[in-house]
Formats: sequence, structure tokens, C-alpha cells
Amino acid sequence: MDLINMGKAAKQAAFALATASTQQKNLALAIIADELQANSEQILAANSKDIELGREAGLSEALLDRLLLNTERLNAIASDVRNVISLNDPVGSEIDHKVLENGMSLARRRVPLGVVGVIYEARPNVTIDIAALCLKTGNASILRGGKETFYSNMELVNVIQTALAKAKLPAACVQYIEKPDRELVSQLLTLDQYVDMIIPRGGAGLHKMCKENSTIPVIIGGFGISHIFVDQSADLVKSLDVVDNAKTQRPSACNALDSLLVHRQVAEQFLPQLVARLQDRVTFVADSSAQALITGAKQWREAQVGDFDTEWLSYTLGVKVVEDLDQAIEHMRVHNASHSDAIMTNDLNSAERFINSVDSAAVYVNASTRFTDGAQFGLGAEVAVSTQKLHARGPMGLEELTSYKWVGKADYLSRS
Amino acid sequence: MDLINMGKAAKQAAFALATASTQQKNLALAIIADELQANSEQILAANSKDIELGREAGLSEALLDRLLLNTERLNAIASDVRNVISLNDPVGSEIDHKVLENGMSLARRRVPLGVVGVIYEARPNVTIDIAALCLKTGNASILRGGKETFYSNMELVNVIQTALAKAKLPAACVQYIEKPDRELVSQLLTLDQYVDMIIPRGGAGLHKMCKENSTIPVIIGGFGISHIFVDQSADLVKSLDVVDNAKTQRPSACNALDSLLVHRQVAEQFLPQLVARLQDRVTFVADSSAQALITGAKQWREAQVGDFDTEWLSYTLGVKVVEDLDQAIEHMRVHNASHSDAIMTNDLNSAERFINSVDSAAVYVNASTRFTDGAQFGLGAEVAVSTQKLHARGPMGLEELTSYKWVGKADYLSRS
Repeated sequence: MDLINMGKAAKQAAFALATASTQQKNLALAIIADELQANSEQILAANSKDIELGREAGLSEALLDRLLLNTERLNAIASDVRNVISLNDPVGSEIDHKVLENGMSLARRRVPLGVVGVIYEARPNVTIDIAALCLKTGNASILRGGKETFYSNMELVNVIQTALAKAKLPAACVQYIEKPDRELVSQLLTLDQYVDMIIPRGGAGLHKMCKENSTIPVIIGGFGISHIFVDQSADLVKSLDVVDNAKTQRPSACNALDSLLVHRQVAEQFLPQLVARLQDRVTFVADSSAQALITGAKQWREAQVGDFDTEWLSYTLGVKVVEDLDQAIEHMRVHNASHSDAIMTNDLNSAERFINSVDSAAVYVNASTRFTDGAQFGLGAEVAVSTQKLHARGPMGLEELTSYKWVGKADYLSRS
Repeated sequence: MDLINMGKAAKQAAFALATASTQQKNLALAIIADELQANSEQILAANSKDIELGREAGLSEALLDRLLLNTERLNAIASDVRNVISLNDPVGSEIDHKVLENGMSLARRRVPLGVVGVIYEARPNVTIDIAALCLKTGNASILRGGKETFYSNMELVNVIQTALAKAKLPAACVQYIEKPDRELVSQLLTLDQYVDMIIPRGGAGLHKMCKENSTIPVIIGGFGISHIFVDQSADLVKSLDVVDNAKTQRPSACNALDSLLVHRQVAEQFLPQLVARLQDRVTFVADSSAQALITGAKQWREAQVGDFDTEWLSYTLGVKVVEDLDQAIEHMRVHNASHSDAIMTNDLNSAERFINSVDSAAVYVNASTRFTDGAQFGLGAEVAVSTQKLHARGPMGLEELTSYKWVGKADYLSRS
């Protein structure tokens, strides 16, 4: 099927899904979860084939691990789908309601977006994950996974199709672009007549490509340098715990700490303690302001141009001493704070100034940057983490897969 | 100044505006309103120059009227600015607030988008209108008006600059692209490093150009075929009033009625009455289903291919008889219902099915499509009318010029 026909079919399916009951959508989800487990042998066999081909193609062990499915991971995916069943269906709820002076009853009612296009890379779990979240919110989806997971995805799409058929939902509610041609991605990005939103799930290159080529609104996200500023009023002992957590709990995450800024008044006290605590695990990258206090570390080097613009995704930490909060804020503005940033402080005024002046999706007072996450925020599921400002910012849950329509009811009312 | 430097300056100004008090922003607005009236002679003289040049260039009388400023219109613009002062400042309010199980206090706080780029055509009032709405919501703006209003806009920008200086706000809070080169518009559309949102205010061609060339999120809107479906259960006498209002109150508006669909059961009764009422003002375009009931009209013609996809913006009305609600909904799906659509009915079930099945920004039960408007909806101001589904749909007020950030506060909390 060519992409225009996929788009048309998705739009038709979206009309049906938009009015499907929560019960019917949940039934499809329950069958997906069951079928994932009932067909685990086939799915794992297909995945083994992907792994084998990936190994032949020389993929790194890290990447192969992201491709890998096993019984435990498959059970976790099924469990995630069952969790989506338990979440509240946002479709049909009214955001606000008022009665106008002329007697019209006016409300904004939540509706599905329509058709969502998702372009992703290696992880096969995204196929089920996104399909489930889109189904729950009444959106048709067109999926394009990485070629490294082709055989796994074909099996997962079979599971989804079985569930759609059993739940009496149109097959085109979830479609998968099978052919590997890159040209098809470009085509998908210009199907604005049929597709309402593009979600790229992958590296910065994929996001850039989508932003530059799409005529459909794109959710950009996941990138940005994360900072912690340790203010002069901070509890330094407690701050050590938070900085440790932000840097080392999961260094490969996009909300892990990249750059630490320390107020000059407390740097001499704080930094040597930090070095003592982290030096077995962390490499410090210090600019001239911080070097004298870092030189005792087992592993450190001088900061080069660009280091404070680097998302480390590893056990590396940029360190800088600043004169005051203003200088910290200025540093963050220049060095692409947009994702998650925190201040350690006991000063109410510093806290509020930090919150209002740092232009990031999530700002924290005395908490780790690692909290930026749909599950941590109680959203129940995470579609993506947006670092743009339109539509949704930060972790996106089910509601962010919806739009609204204005609903006006009256007694044969004309405008005067 | 080149556009990259304009973008940088706007972003810097946006940081200052984001933390400006409502009082300071309102002061700037009050001065704009006062200066508009104090400088009316100069502004009207510049406008006369634009009108003169426009007449020499052979612009239509309709377009010249849109360009024209006079004392009355200038007073109306000043009055609109004073109205914006009276509106609630959305910045800083919290959308929701919760305390997580781990003790973190978490809220989403409304913040400005940052920098808004606005591209518009003839009307000089847009310059003041958009600058005022952006200032109120703490957004810096980069404006690009039509070359037909160059001299008027230069005077209006002077007024804005005077007000910014007197209110001690950075000059770059509102910038205007003076040079006429079309290339500059393309450059503006790719300044994604500095600009957060593009609002095109103009015809379908401008919207399409922005959608296709912008790497910045664009608010698309204002277009779509508006329908009324007269159900078999409708009060036909009252429906006549509503259809009349929707078609004739202001035919040039984007929410004016384009196509009327009538249930077969009531068509024989309703259409001749409609013809009798509207035939002195309206030309009917009827497809084969409706012709027998329309032929008595003073002005009518057979519908051609494309007529039901035409936004008339004039005293023309498409008419079609349909078998039932399903056929009406199907017609609307095929013929680009996306803006404002209404059903006339006394049947609760038909009303709910219509509301849920018609995928438009605004759907009405027993009310005129003409209500889709920021002022009518009580938003206080209208930035644009969006027909896309991301971020905002339908009339956009001040809130839709904001984003939010997540604000988490805790007692030195690490993620477990």
C-alpha cells in the first residue's frame, strides 16, 4: 500500500476510533497483552533473527541489547499494556464549561488528535507501547520502526492486528510502514492532509530531520543540557545526595545531570566533598573557575570549548564555579537549558527567581533532575518528553495525545 | 539588523518580559493606547501615503478599505488595547497542583511561549493588536506586515517603541522587519533557534507557504467549509432564522455558512421557505438532490464539481438534500469540515452523534456557525482561529499564547 492510501485509511479508521467506547478500546488492549504472551515463542524467534542479522551487520553490544527481547521483557511490555487499560480515558471529558450571556452552553470537549505518525529507532517495545497509547486515546497510528527490528516488529504488528480484529476495530487503526526505503519517511512527513502529529522517538538527528522536513506538527524533545546550581544557602550535605543521584542513578538518561554550577561562597567547602564522594565513578570536566578545587580528583580534565554544551549521557560531569544566581542563570541560558534543571537552596527568593528565570520544561527546587518522567509525575504513561513549548512540554501522558473541540448548544440562537 | 540578530535580540528581550510584572506590561499597553491617539495626525498622514501609493498601484477598493485608517478606526484600535489591559494575565498561574507520594510538590505553571513571529497582510491594526497581545502575555514578537501598509506600520511601530521605552521594557520586545525582500520571510521561518511560534494572519496561500517552509511550529487556521445540517426533527421555523444568520450576517467571514444539508424528510417543507426568505439576497447552488426544490429561486445554478469544497465568502449558498444524519456526516468529512459546523435538531441522540462525529474546531447544536469568535466565546481577545489540532483549536485567546513549565519543589529529594 502506498503512503497516501495508508493516510486515507488511517483517517477513516480514526473516525471510527474517535467514537469507539472506552470498553471497546480496552478490550483491544487486553487482547494485545494476552496475545503478546500467547505468541511469545514466535516473537522471540523473530527477535533472534533480528539479533543475528544485527550481529552480522556489526551492531554494537549496547545497540543489540536495546533490540533484544526475552520472556521477561515481553512480560514487561504486556504488563505496560495492561497498565494503560487501567488509566483514565481522556476522550469525551470537558475541559471547562460555561453558559454565555446569550444562553449558549459552551464547553471544550477532549477529542483524539486523529492520526499520529511515529518514527522510531531500535527498541521493539515502542511498537506496542505507542500503538497501545494511541488506541487508548482514540488515535489511529502509522508506525515506522528501525530496519534492525524488522522481523520482531512484523510479529508485534500481527499481534496488534489480531487484537483489532477480535475487538471489531478497523485494521487501519494501526498501520506499519514495512518497506525500508528512506524516501517513505519523507513522504510520511508531508502527509498533512491525513496525519495530525509526528512523534520522532530517537536521536537528535531524527528530530532535526523531522523538524526540517515535516509539514505536519512535530513533537520535538528529549534533548537539553541538565544543570544543578548549588546556591550559597543550600544544605550542602543533602545537596551531595541529590547531585550524586542526578549524575549517577542512570547516566544514559536525558534527565541525568550534565553540568554542576556552584556558588563561589560554598564552592571551597562543597566541591572537595563532592570529589571525595564521586571520584570512583565520575570524571570531572572543570573550567578554570573550578579547577583548583577539582585537581584532587582521580579523573578530571580541563573543560574545552563545547563541553558545557554537551549532553554527556555517561559518568562525566561538567563543573563550574559562579559568582551568584544571576551568573548561573546566564550560563544556563547560553548553554541550552531546556529539559530539566534544579537549584539547591534554602532561600525562598532564590528559589522563585530560579523557577521563573530558567526556561526549561521542568525546573526543580531541592530535587534531582532525574524526576522528569511520566511515571514519576503520575501521568501513568509517557508518550514522549517534549522540549518545545507548543501543545505539550515535558513528559507527555494520554491527555497530550488529545485535542479539543468547542461544543456550543443553544435554542436556535443567531448572532446579533 | 539581520534576522539572526533580530532573533537573538528577541530572545534576550523575551527573558526580561517573562519576569516583567503585569503592572509593567499594562503600563506599556496604556502608553500605546495614549500615544496612538496623541499621534493620530502623523499616523493618518502616513496612512494616506499608503492609500495613495496603493491607489497608484491599482489595488482594489475592497483592499484599500482594509488598509484605511481614520480617527474612528484609530480610536477603536486604542480601545482594543485598553481592553487587553483589563484582561487577566495568564502568566504565573498554575494549571494544576499535586503533592506526589514522595512529598514533591508538583505544578504546571503558565509561562510565555518566548518569541512569536507574525506574518500578516494588509490590515495595519494587526500591528498594534498582535504587539499588545504578545506584550500582555510576556512574549517578544517579530512582526512582518504587508508592503502596502509600510508607512502606516512605521508610525505604529514608533508608537510601540515609545511605549516600551517609557515602560522601561527592552526595545526588542517588539521588532518589525522593514525590508520588503520576500527572502526575509523564508529566513524568519527557519529561525527555530530563537522563535517559538509562527502565526500567519492572511489567506490560504500564506498559511500553506508557512506550513511547507517553517521549521518553527505554525498555527494554521481560518479556513474550512462551514455546514449546517437541518435534521428531520428540527424546528423548521426557528432553523430559518439560524440559517439566515449564518449565511447573511457577514458573508465574508470564515465562519459564515457555505453548505446547507437538509434531511430528505423535511426538505420539501423547508427549502421553499428558505428560498422565499433568502432569494433577494442569496444565490443558491444546488446539486441534483435539491434542484427540484430550488428552481423557484430568483438566482440559482446547478452545482459543479468543487462547489461543495468552496468557501464562498459571499452571498452564495450550496444546498444538498441528504438521506439522513449519516450521509450528512459523510458529506462533511469528504468536504473539509474543520472550522464551524452546526446541526438543527430536537433529537438528543442526533445532537450527540453530530457533536462526536464531526471533526471541526467548533460544533454547534441549534446555533449559528457565526459564533466561532474569541469575543463571542468570552476569551476577551482573539489572536487567531486555529483549525489545527495541536496546542490550540478554534479561537485562541491570551492563554493560547502561553506554554507551561513543570515546577517541582521538595526537601532535597533523590529519585529512588
